[in-house]
Amino acid sequence: MTFGGSQHIHEECGIFGICSQAPRDVAGLAYYALYALQHRGQESAGIVVNDGGIFSSYKDVGLVGDIFTSDVLDKLGQGEIAVGHVRYATTGADNIANVQPVVINHHKGQLALAHNGNLTNTSALRKELEEKGMIFHSTTDSEVIAYIIVQERLRCGSIEAAVSAAMDRIEGAYSLVISSPAKLIAARDEFGFRPLCYGTMPDGSIAFASESCALDSIGATLVRDLKPGEIAIVEDGHLRFDTAHCGKRSRRMCAFEYVYFARPDSIVDGTNISRARQRAGEYLAQEHPVDADVVIGVPDSGLDAAIGYSRVSGIPFVLGFTKNKYIGRTFISPGQENREAGVNIKLNPIREAVEGKRVVLIDDSIVRGTTSRRIAEQLWAAGAKEIHMRISAPPFVAPCYYGTDVDDTKGLIAVSHTVEEIARLIKVTSLGYLSRERLVLLTGKDEGFCTACFGGEYPTAIAGNIGKNRFDTPRPRKLNKLQNRKEGEE
Amino acid sequence: MTFGGSQHIHEECGIFGICSQAPRDVAGLAYYALYALQHRGQESAGIVVNDGGIFSSYKDVGLVGDIFTSDVLDKLGQGEIAVGHVRYATTGADNIANVQPVVINHHKGQLALAHNGNLTNTSALRKELEEKGMIFHSTTDSEVIAYIIVQERLRCGSIEAAVSAAMDRIEGAYSLVISSPAKLIAARDEFGFRPLCYGTMPDGSIAFASESCALDSIGATLVRDLKPGEIAIVEDGHLRFDTAHCGKRSRRMCAFEYVYFARPDSIVDGTNISRARQRAGEYLAQEHPVDADVVIGVPDSGLDAAIGYSRVSGIPFVLGFTKNKYIGRTFISPGQENREAGVNIKLNPIREAVEGKRVVLIDDSIVRGTTSRRIAEQLWAAGAKEIHMRISAPPFVAPCYYGTDVDDTKGLIAVSHTVEEIARLIKVTSLGYLSRERLVLLTGKDEGFCTACFGGEYPTAIAGNIGKNRFDTPRPRKLNKLQNRKEGEE
Amino acid sequence: MTFGGSQHIHEECGIFGICSQAPRDVAGLAYYALYALQHRGQESAGIVVNDGGIFSSYKDVGLVGDIFTSDVLDKLGQGEIAVGHVRYATTGADNIANVQPVVINHHKGQLALAHNGNLTNTSALRKELEEKGMIFHSTTDSEVIAYIIVQERLRCGSIEAAVSAAMDRIEGAYSLVISSPAKLIAARDEFGFRPLCYGTMPDGSIAFASESCALDSIGATLVRDLKPGEIAIVEDGHLRFDTAHCGKRSRRMCAFEYVYFARPDSIVDGTNISRARQRAGEYLAQEHPVDADVVIGVPDSGLDAAIGYSRVSGIPFVLGFTKNKYIGRTFISPGQENREAGVNIKLNPIREAVEGKRVVLIDDSIVRGTTSRRIAEQLWAAGAKEIHMRISAPPFVAPCYYGTDVDDTKGLIAVSHTVEEIARLIKVTSLGYLSRERLVLLTGKDEGFCTACFGGEYPTAIAGNIGKNRFDTPRPRKLNKLQNRKEGEE
Amino acid sequence: MTFGGSQHIHEECGIFGICSQAPRDVAGLAYYALYALQHRGQESAGIVVNDGGIFSSYKDVGLVGDIFTSDVLDKLGQGEIAVGHVRYATTGADNIANVQPVVINHHKGQLALAHNGNLTNTSALRKELEEKGMIFHSTTDSEVIAYIIVQERLRCGSIEAAVSAAMDRIEGAYSLVISSPAKLIAARDEFGFRPLCYGTMPDGSIAFASESCALDSIGATLVRDLKPGEIAIVEDGHLRFDTAHCGKRSRRMCAFEYVYFARPDSIVDGTNISRARQRAGEYLAQEHPVDADVVIGVPDSGLDAAIGYSRVSGIPFVLGFTKNKYIGRTFISPGQENREAGVNIKLNPIREAVEGKRVVLIDDSIVRGTTSRRIAEQLWAAGAKEIHMRISAPPFVAPCYYGTDVDDTKGLIAVSHTVEEIARLIKVTSLGYLSRERLVLLTGKDEGFCTACFGGEYPTAIAGNIGKNRFDTPRPRKLNKLQNRKEGEE
Repeated sequence: MTFGGSQHIHEECGIFGICSQAPRDVAGLAYYALYALQHRGQESAGIVVNDGGIFSSYKDVGLVGDIFTSDVLDKLGQGEIAVGHVRYATTGADNIANVQPVVINHHKGQLALAHNGNLTNTSALRKELEEKGMIFHSTTDSEVIAYIIVQERLRCGSIEAAVSAAMDRIEGAYSLVISSPAKLIAARDEFGFRPLCYGTMPDGSIAFASESCALDSIGATLVRDLKPGEIAIVEDGHLRFDTAHCGKRSRRMCAFEYVYFARPDSIVDGTNISRARQRAGEYLAQEHPVDADVVIGVPDSGLDAAIGYSRVSGIPFVLGFTKNKYIGRTFISPGQENREAGVNIKLNPIREAVEGKRVVLIDDSIVRGTTSRRIAEQLWAAGAKEIHMRISAPPFVAPCYYGTDVDDTKGLIAVSHTVEEIARLIKVTSLGYLSRERLVLLTGKDEGFCTACFGGEYPTAIAGNIGKNRFDTPRPRKLNKLQNRKEGEE
Repeated sequence: MTFGGSQHIHEECGIFGICSQAPRDVAGLAYYALYALQHRGQESAGIVVNDGGIFSSYKDVGLVGDIFTSDVLDKLGQGEIAVGHVRYATTGADNIANVQPVVINHHKGQLALAHNGNLTNTSALRKELEEKGMIFHSTTDSEVIAYIIVQERLRCGSIEAAVSAAMDRIEGAYSLVISSPAKLIAARDEFGFRPLCYGTMPDGSIAFASESCALDSIGATLVRDLKPGEIAIVEDGHLRFDTAHCGKRSRRMCAFEYVYFARPDSIVDGTNISRARQRAGEYLAQEHPVDADVVIGVPDSGLDAAIGYSRVSGIPFVLGFTKNKYIGRTFISPGQENREAGVNIKLNPIREAVEGKRVVLIDDSIVRGTTSRRIAEQLWAAGAKEIHMRISAPPFVAPCYYGTDVDDTKGLIAVSHTVEEIARLIKVTSLGYLSRERLVLLTGKDEGFCTACFGGEYPTAIAGNIGKNRFDTPRPRKLNKLQNRKEGEE
Repeated sequence: MTFGGSQHIHEECGIFGICSQAPRDVAGLAYYALYALQHRGQESAGIVVNDGGIFSSYKDVGLVGDIFTSDVLDKLGQGEIAVGHVRYATTGADNIANVQPVVINHHKGQLALAHNGNLTNTSALRKELEEKGMIFHSTTDSEVIAYIIVQERLRCGSIEAAVSAAMDRIEGAYSLVISSPAKLIAARDEFGFRPLCYGTMPDGSIAFASESCALDSIGATLVRDLKPGEIAIVEDGHLRFDTAHCGKRSRRMCAFEYVYFARPDSIVDGTNISRARQRAGEYLAQEHPVDADVVIGVPDSGLDAAIGYSRVSGIPFVLGFTKNKYIGRTFISPGQENREAGVNIKLNPIREAVEGKRVVLIDDSIVRGTTSRRIAEQLWAAGAKEIHMRISAPPFVAPCYYGTDVDDTKGLIAVSHTVEEIARLIKVTSLGYLSRERLVLLTGKDEGFCTACFGGEYPTAIAGNIGKNRFDTPRPRKLNKLQNRKEGEE
Repeated sequence: MTFGGSQHIHEECGIFGICSQAPRDVAGLAYYALYALQHRGQESAGIVVNDGGIFSSYKDVGLVGDIFTSDVLDKLGQGEIAVGHVRYATTGADNIANVQPVVINHHKGQLALAHNGNLTNTSALRKELEEKGMIFHSTTDSEVIAYIIVQERLRCGSIEAAVSAAMDRIEGAYSLVISSPAKLIAARDEFGFRPLCYGTMPDGSIAFASESCALDSIGATLVRDLKPGEIAIVEDGHLRFDTAHCGKRSRRMCAFEYVYFARPDSIVDGTNISRARQRAGEYLAQEHPVDADVVIGVPDSGLDAAIGYSRVSGIPFVLGFTKNKYIGRTFISPGQENREAGVNIKLNPIREAVEGKRVVLIDDSIVRGTTSRRIAEQLWAAGAKEIHMRISAPPFVAPCYYGTDVDDTKGLIAVSHTVEEIARLIKVTSLGYLSRERLVLLTGKDEGFCTACFGGEYPTAIAGNIGKNRFDTPRPRKLNKLQNRKEGEE
C-alpha cells in the first residue's frame, strides 16, 4: 500500500532491551535499534537507561530522530541496561502519559517496561486493581501489566517470578522487555502473537528486539526468537530462561507480520520476511494466474511479492513506479484544483513500463480501497491496457484485538463487498487475494498463525468492551503537525 | 536580582482553575492566566480541560507560549472547567512524568490536580501508600496528594470531603486546584504558606489563581484570597466554602512572596505587591540611611524599593540601567576573551546616571553574590564614586522546605559570611539588609509570616530526609536548550 | 508607546564596523554590537567578515540572536574587518535581496556596505546608472550608493576618494560603514541626520556604530560621533579623517533619535539619551503643568521623561505598570470574546498606583492613537480619577524622508485632529505635547536638528516620487510568523 | 551509489517555468514541479511569480518542502507566470546571493532567470562587463547571463531577441527559463548539454522543465524537449519558436543524465530514463558476463540496470537491500565504537538474498570508492560467496565543466587506479564498467552525447581558469545542519 495516512493499518509498537556487563552507551545502542524499528510505530518513542539501579528516561511524541538529539542521548548517559519503545496509536496531545516505556517508582526499586501487543482482559484487571486501591494515570494496558508485575514482585520476591505470575493473570498479546534495578527480563505471551527475538554482541551484551533488523543495526548477532510463553532473564551478564509457560497454548503468531508489518531484512521465527513475501507472490501466481505482459509491485512493500509472481509466472518483472524520496513531513498541497487534477507527487508511474501493456500489479493489502483506486487510475493514465491486481494477503474482514489499530471493521472494504465489487470499485481488470490456506504456508510450513483478521478464529476469548476503555477520551482529531507528518509518510 | 540563571531563587509553581456554568473556551482563559503566572515557573506547563466529565490535557516542558499553540488550544476545546499549572523545579528530560496537572484515571471518575508548595511528610505518606499497594510513576509530592485524595474519595464519597480528609494527613505547604468530573475545588494549607485567590467573571465563572494578576489577565474581578485552611467548592455554578480547617494553625504566609516572587501588580492577601516593595525601600532608608547623590534599582525587581528609598531619604531616584529587551533564549556568548573583557549585553548601566556620583543601589536579594558583584563592577566602570547597596529583604541563611528551590544552604553567601564580608566580596562601599522585624510589616501590620529562610523558626516539623526522595535521580545537568533559555531570562 | 506592532514608528537601520590590526573574532564582536543595536531594526541582519581581502557574509531575515547561531559565527571565522547591519523596513519574503550589508564582487576587489538613512535623489541616480548599463537587483538606495562608490573607485583610485566623490552625488540621510579589501571606511552625511560614533578597544581595534551602546557591548571606549560630512578611514591599524565635506551644510541631526529611537544608555553627539529624555519631562512639566497625585510613565520609553516631570513638578513618580517579560514572539490571542473583554496580557496597570488618583501619564509619542486609548482605558478600569497625558515630543504631522518608516501621513492622528480632539479620542482628561522650541533644547542647547516630521522644514529638496521606487512591489501583507513576532514585541 | 554525502556527484540545478493565459496559482504549480525536480538540487530553491508585470519572489537555502510553507505560497499569490529553480552547489551561508532565480530590477522592466548548466567563458565575459561598469553581487555565471540579456535587451528591443543575441556571446552549458514582464522564454544551448522539455496543461498553460517528471507532477502533458539551440517564446498565451541557433553545433547531451541524474520516470529527449538504465544493465551483461546465482542492485539507482542484467543473463533478480525510510536529516551517529563496529542504519542487506550466493551487484557509479567498499563489506558480512560488481557507466576520469560539481579529478578513484586495483580496493571479486561505446547507445542509437567526464573529448574550448572564479571564497566547510541533511539523504 502506499500514500494516504489513513489508508494504513498500523502495528502498535516496537520494543528493545539491552543488558551489558559493564556500563556503556546503551542509550546510543537503543537509539540505533529504535531507528531500525521505526516502521513499527512513528508516533512516540522512549528510552530508559538503567545505570546501577538509577533510571533515567526520555520520552516524547515524534520520530526517533527528532526526539533523540545528541544532547538528549548525552544526558541519558551510560548504563548497563536500556529499554526502548516506539509506538503508533496515540497521537493525542493528552496522551503523553501513554508514551512508553512505563516507568514505576517503588520503594522496592524502579521498573521500566516496554510492551508490544494488546491485552484482552484489561478492563477486568483494571477494575480489580482499582478496587485494591491502585490508581492509574494512563489508559494503556501496559500500565496494567506494570502494576500487576509490581504487585506480584511484592508477593513473589523476584522480578522474574513476578513476570511469570503476571503471565497467569494477563490474557492476550504481549511481548515485553522489562528492566528492574539489576535485571533485564524479556517475555512473550503463550500464543506468541507478537515477535520477540534476541542476540548477542561481541562484548557479551544481550539484546532483545521486536525484529532482528534492530539487532543488525547495533552489530548484534541474532540467536533466535523467544518461544511462545518463554521468559528470558539477564542477570550479572548471564542469560537464562524460564519455560514454564511454554507449550501451554498452540502458537498463534500474527500472519500479518509476515506480509505487512515486519521489515524485509528481518528474520522472524526463523523465516526471512523478504523470502516469505516472495513466496506469497509465488503462491499468488499459482492461485490467480493471468496472461499479462509485465509484473510490477507497489513500492516498497509489494516488490518482493511481485518478484515472486514473476518467477513462477514467467511474466517479466519491472519497476513500475518512482517514489519521490524528498517528500517529507512538511509536504503541503496547495491548490484544490491541482489536487483534483490528479497531481502525482509522491508516487509516479513509469509510463514506459506500463504503456500499452497488460499489467499485473502486486500490493500487500487493500484497506479502504481509496489508495488502490488512485494507483490504478495512475496506471490507466499512463496507458496500461489491463490491470490485474494481486494482493499478497487474504481480505481483512474482522477486527484485530492483539495489537494493531484495526479494532473495528468500519471502513474495511472487504467486509461489505465481494472481490468482484472491490475490483470494480478500485477500477482494475481483475483482482485476486492470497488464500488463507496459502498464507499460513509463507514460512515454509504451517507453524500456527493467528488469522483472525482474515476471518480465522480468535485464539482468545474476546470481551464485549475490548479496546473500549471507559476512560478513553474519544480519539481526538489529530494535531496538524502530526497529520502533516503522516501525509508525508508513505 | 538580575542575570545568571543559577543566581536566582525559584518559586516552584503557579496554579489556576476556572469553572464556568456553560461550556466555553476555558483552555484559552487558562492560557492567558498561565501567561500571567509564568514568572512563578518557566520549565513546564499544563492545562486540563474538563468537558462534561471528559478530561483532555496537554502538558510539556517549556514556556506557556511555546507549548500552547493555536492547534493545541483548539484541540483542548471547550469545557466547563480547566485546571492549569506552571512549574519550575524539574528541567530534566526524564521528568515529563512530573509535569502537572496530575491526571488520574479512576473508575469513580477522573481527577486533575495542580499543586503549589511542598509537603513535609511526603516520605512517610509515600511509604504508607506503597505498602497499601499504590504505585507511583513520578517522584513528586503532588502525586502523593492526588493518591490520598482518590483514596479518601472512595472512603468519603464526595471529592470535597476527600480533600478535607486529605488535609488531615498531609503536612506542609500546599495550595491546590482540583477538578473532579463535576466540581472544581480549591484549597490552601492551614498555615497559608502559598497564596491562592479567587475572583469572578462577568458571566459568573469562578476562577482561582496563585496571584491576582492571572485574574486580571482574563478580565476577572478579584474577590479575596482563600483563608489558611479554607476549601472552596464550585458546583453547578455555585461557590461555597468549607472552613473546618481554618484557624487550626497560625498564619505563616511566605514573606518572600512579597519581596521577591509575586508580580508587582498582584494583590496578595489584600496587599499590593508594588506597594509592599516600596514600603521595603522606605524601611531600608530608615534602617540604613546614607549620604548619597542618587538612588537606583536593579530592574525590574529593585525599582519599587528604590522609589520607596528615594521617597523617605529625599535622594533623587533615577533609572540606572537599560535592559536589552531582545536578549532571547537563543543568546550565545561567542569568544571567551569577549566574555572576560566584561561584555555587557543584557543589563547596561547608564553612565550619566552614576558617573561621579554616590549611588544607592537597591536589589531584592543576594544569593551567591556573583551577580551583585558584576553589577557593582559595571557601576564602578561607569564612574560611580561610592556604591551603597541596600537589599529589600533579610539575608537568606536557612533552607526552605515549603515550595522554593532553596532546599539546602550551599552556595548562599550569607550563610558563611558577615554583612561586612559580603560587602567586600561584592565590591560595594556599604551594604545593608532589611531587618526581619521590618520584613513582617511590609503589608502594613504583622499578620503572621513564615521567615524560616531568613533565620526564623520553621512552622512545621521537618523530617530529616525532606526533599530528598529516595527515588530521585540525582538532578541531571540541564539540557542545553533549557540552559539557553535560562540564560536568556532575567 | 507600547503594544501593537503597527502603532510604532521604526528606525530603519543600525550599522556597525570594526577594524583590528590582526585577525581576530570580529564576527563575534559584530554579533554583540548588533545585539545592542537590535532596537534600531528587527527584521533582518547581516555580518560580513573580511579576512585578508576574502569576504564571507551571512544575512537573513529575523532577529540577530536567531540568525547568528554558534555554527554561523564559527563559519564566518576570524578576520581583520567586520561590517554589520540590522534593518527594519522590509519584512517581505521577496526582499532577501534587500538585506544588508550590500556585498559587491568586482575585479578591483570586493566591497561591503552598511547604510542607515534614506537618500532623497535615489530615482534620478538610479535612472542615470541604469542608462550607463548598471543593473540593480534590489530596490534599495543602499545598492545605489554601493554602485556609485564602485563607479567612483574606478575613476578615483582609492576607496576613500570614491566615498568622498560619491558624497557629492548622493543627497539625503546616510551614515555608512564600508569595507574594501584593505580598509574600513565610515562616513556621515553633511547634515548629520543619522548618528554614527566611533571608539577604540584595548587592543587598538577601531569600531564604528550607530550608537555608543554597541561600543559598550564589546568593551570599546567611545571617542566621539563623526561630524556631519566627516569620513573616517582605518588602514593598517591607523585612523585618519577626511573633513572636506564638513561644514558645508548646517547640522540637522534627527531630533526623534533623542526622544524615541536611541537607547537610554547611548551617548549621541555628546548627550546621554536618558538625560535628554528626563529633560523632555522637565520641560513638559513647565509647559503643561497640572495638579495631580502621581506621575507614571509608559514603560520603558516613558520612564525617563516621567522622572523628569516628577522632579520639576514635585508630583511623586511611581511605577504604574508591570510588563509581562515572558510575552514572546509566539504569543497568540485565543478567543475573540477574551480579547474584547479587555484582556491585558502584555502591560498591566498597578491598581494601587492609580486607584482614586489624578494621574500624569507620560509617553514618547502618539502615532495612530489606538495604543494610547487602550492604555488610558486600562488606567480608568484600574480606578484613575483623572488622566493627564503628556507626550515628550511634538505631534507628528509630516512624513520623514530620512530613514524612518513614516513616509506618508496616513494614519497619523495629529495630522487631522487638534490636541483637544486627540485627547477626546484617546479618552484622557488632558493632553499636552512638548513644543518644538523645547525639543531642540534637549541636548542642552540648540545644535541644529531636523524637526521636519514635527512640522519643521525639510533640510533637503524632496522629489515628488521619493520613497516610491517604481520597481517596488506593493508592500505585501506580512507573513504570519513575522506578524507574530511583531505582536510579541513591545 | 548510496550513502555518504560526499560520495555523490551532484547535478547543479533543476529549472521550471510556466505561463498561463489568466492569473492562477502558478506558485503552487511551481512548488509541485520543484518538488519533482528536487533530486537535481537540494541546497536552495526559489520561485518568482509574475503577476501582470509585478514580480514577487521567495528564495532560501533548504529543501523545497521546508522553504515553501503555505504562508509563503499564499504570499506569492496568483500570477500568469512563474519561474522556479532548485540548486545544488552552494551550501555556504554567504551564498544566499547565489540562490536563483536571479531577479533584476531595471527601468525597462524586471527580469527573472533560472539557469541549469555552466558557462565556459564566464571569466572573460565578467571582465568585459565590469569594464563597462556593471557590478556583480554574486559569483555565479547565471548573473553574467542575466546581465548580458539585460544589456542586449536595451540594444535589441525585445527580450527574445536579447536571449538570441546573448547566445552568441555565452559559451558552455545552459538551459534557461526567463520571465520578462510580459513573456516567458526558454532556451537550450547549441550543444543541448542539459535537458529542457515543455508541455501543455488542460487550461492551455505552457510549462517548461528540466525533466518531464515535473510536468507530470502538475498534470501537464509532455510535448517534447527543446532542440539544442532552440528558443521558445510564450506571449499572450501563444507559443512560438526561434530556431536560428539550431543545428550550429552537433548535439552533445550529457550522457550522465541517463545513467545517473535524471529520475526514472522522466522522458529525456524521447527516451524514458528507466528504460535506458535497463538497457545499460543489458549491455553490461553482454560486456561483463559472469557465472552467478543472483543479481541485486544498489537501491534505488541500480535497480533498473540490475533488472536489465538479469534479463539478458538469465540470473535471477532479487531485492538485496532494505532502505530505512525514516532516516531523516536529523540522523546522528552516537558512539564512535558503534560506528566502527559496522553499524548499518540506512541500507541493510537482506541476508537471505545473498548468503552463500555468488552475487552480481549493480550500481551506477564509483566516485571515491568508499561507499562501494562499505556495501561490499556488508554483503560479505551477510554471507555472500562472491561479489561481482558491475557499473552501469564508464569510469569517471575527467572533470566536467558543464554543470556538475566534479570540477576537478581529485578523489576520483578511477583517475589513479586500474579497474583491477579498484576491485581490490573496494573488496569485490570482479568489477566491470559499461564501455563508452555502449553508453552512447542507451537511448537506442547514438544521437550525440557528451562523454567528456568518461575520457571523451570536450565539445567546447576550456579556459585555464574555468570554474575558478577569482572572487570565489574558498568553499567553506559546511554548516552542521546542512551536513546532517546530506547524511540523511541517500
